[in-house]
Amino acid sequence: MPISIADVRDAHTRIKPYIHCTPMLQSSQLNTLLGCELVFKADNMQKVGAFKARGACNAVFSMDKDSLNKGVVTHSSGNHGAALAWAAAMRKIACTVVMPNNAPQAKKDAVISYGATVVYCEPSMTAREATVASLVDKHNARLIHPYDDDLIIAGQGTAALETLSQIEQSIDILMAPVGGGGLLGGSALVVKQSSDVGSIQVIGAEPEMANDAWQGLKSGVRVAQFVPKTIADGLRGTLGMRNFNIITEHVDDILLTSEARIVEAMKLIWSRLKIIVEPSAAVPVAAIMDQPEQFKGKRIAIIVSGGNLDLDDLPW
Amino acid sequence: MPISIADVRDAHTRIKPYIHCTPMLQSSQLNTLLGCELVFKADNMQKVGAFKARGACNAVFSMDKDSLNKGVVTHSSGNHGAALAWAAAMRKIACTVVMPNNAPQAKKDAVISYGATVVYCEPSMTAREATVASLVDKHNARLIHPYDDDLIIAGQGTAALETLSQIEQSIDILMAPVGGGGLLGGSALVVKQSSDVGSIQVIGAEPEMANDAWQGLKSGVRVAQFVPKTIADGLRGTLGMRNFNIITEHVDDILLTSEARIVEAMKLIWSRLKIIVEPSAAVPVAAIMDQPEQFKGKRIAIIVSGGNLDLDDLPW
Repeated sequence: MPISIADVRDAHTRIKPYIHCTPMLQSSQLNTLLGCELVFKADNMQKVGAFKARGACNAVFSMDKDSLNKGVVTHSSGNHGAALAWAAAMRKIACTVVMPNNAPQAKKDAVISYGATVVYCEPSMTAREATVASLVDKHNARLIHPYDDDLIIAGQGTAALETLSQIEQSIDILMAPVGGGGLLGGSALVVKQSSDVGSIQVIGAEPEMANDAWQGLKSGVRVAQFVPKTIADGLRGTLGMRNFNIITEHVDDILLTSEARIVEAMKLIWSRLKIIVEPSAAVPVAAIMDQPEQFKGKRIAIIVSGGNLDLDDLPW
Repeated sequence: MPISIADVRDAHTRIKPYIHCTPMLQSSQLNTLLGCELVFKADNMQKVGAFKARGACNAVFSMDKDSLNKGVVTHSSGNHGAALAWAAAMRKIACTVVMPNNAPQAKKDAVISYGATVVYCEPSMTAREATVASLVDKHNARLIHPYDDDLIIAGQGTAALETLSQIEQSIDILMAPVGGGGLLGGSALVVKQSSDVGSIQVIGAEPEMANDAWQGLKSGVRVAQFVPKTIADGLRGTLGMRNFNIITEHVDDILLTSEARIVEAMKLIWSRLKIIVEPSAAVPVAAIMDQPEQFKGKRIAIIVSGGNLDLDDLPW
């Protein structure tokens, strides 16, 4: 049975003691510049610096004693790995994270700092999954997939659940970046299954250089193999099957944007909102900058996905 | 008659419709690293990116019609100038800002973007004050001093007023950086004249390279002439007379810190709290890093003064 908003509410009850209810931020200068009203859900300030803490916490705190003893394993370009390591440390269980060897140093360091074991692989979905499969075989550990997992999707949906309870006026649109589809899928479930929020469009934003979710939504066929080459390292995963199903049903549109625009949007957010966001988190604002007429006068909530990057290696 | 917490409460009532009640932020990793519990009042996310919006708004919204028509003038290393320009624009009055020629480009741009006229001068208090005096003579405009002004001090105190109402547990210490002394003075008034918050120490933090407030507190004699050479451009003002009097009466201590430590603290705040802070705003954390034993196990509120700097010219 597919998950619903009830699963997201359960997740929120489960993880609330461990996560931050992150603030909603606004900049009137940014609004003037872009011609619309943006409210940002600052999950770059979430535990481990990314929304991924939500799903990982939900998955690990849903495990029973027997499976806990065998530990957890996952593959991640960084933030899910750090999140799982963090959640595993709270439950004092073993955690192994398979990371692509081109993940940012700050993300590799974070996973290690939370006490997980890191195994590197080539930067492709095939390599990630093969490496994880061999580890699952060897240790009998529980695979906590970074996005194609009901508990993960329900956990990520809690950011949208909080957003809807925190906004003071109704919104026209909710936007989130899309990589594997955990955040966008969970958010879409929450928005479309909330009865008391009026009609809200859900729009995903994706780099042109990693447009597998866009292709899937437009063609109705999931792209299973894809090698993305975007600066938005958090969006290099390929849309999962569960995520594809939810997104096809509940997401109104996915917009694409260029690498240069992502960097421009990132710098704009840094300078106007005074927050550190990683390239992936800037993708929705980049999409708005590309098509301002589509968003003119609208009130838009944006989930800021994360703020982890190498401060010594900025893209400007 | 010296101002009191009642003036700060009046200021808060006056400016509340125009400013943000900025969020309180925490990082458990930062707390573990520093051995104390820090709660940050994120006034880098205030209007114009600095607490200075509070005082400028209070001053400009306290003016009567006659004086409004003559406009306002000030001198500022940047944030007060932007704040006054912003407040003046809301009341549709003329604003001239005298800026030292070594102020950061981002701060010059901000003042201009809010519609003020900028006049440059040499980077000394004497040059600033002489240039302002000639402008006041010429236009009969009202001088809104960046810190040696009761309305400004009362306005800046509203950050501490909000902090005390926002914190969920009592604190042992409140810290703020000190330049001209508007923020530290206003904060100290609020903390020491609040009857219901228990005993809270108020500690200022100042760069060694701009230690005029520290000298004044230790010797009991205000240093009136001083040419600071610190990276913390927001703290290059010299402690004002009203500020000196309040600080001497209400501030428990001022700690000094080095330029290198300020940069280290700034980068630590960026990477752990995921917020953009300017060098001045990192000075309290730098002081804690210098003397961790003094702060061990304490609960400390820190007012984050601002987040305006050139993103193309970072100090690392």
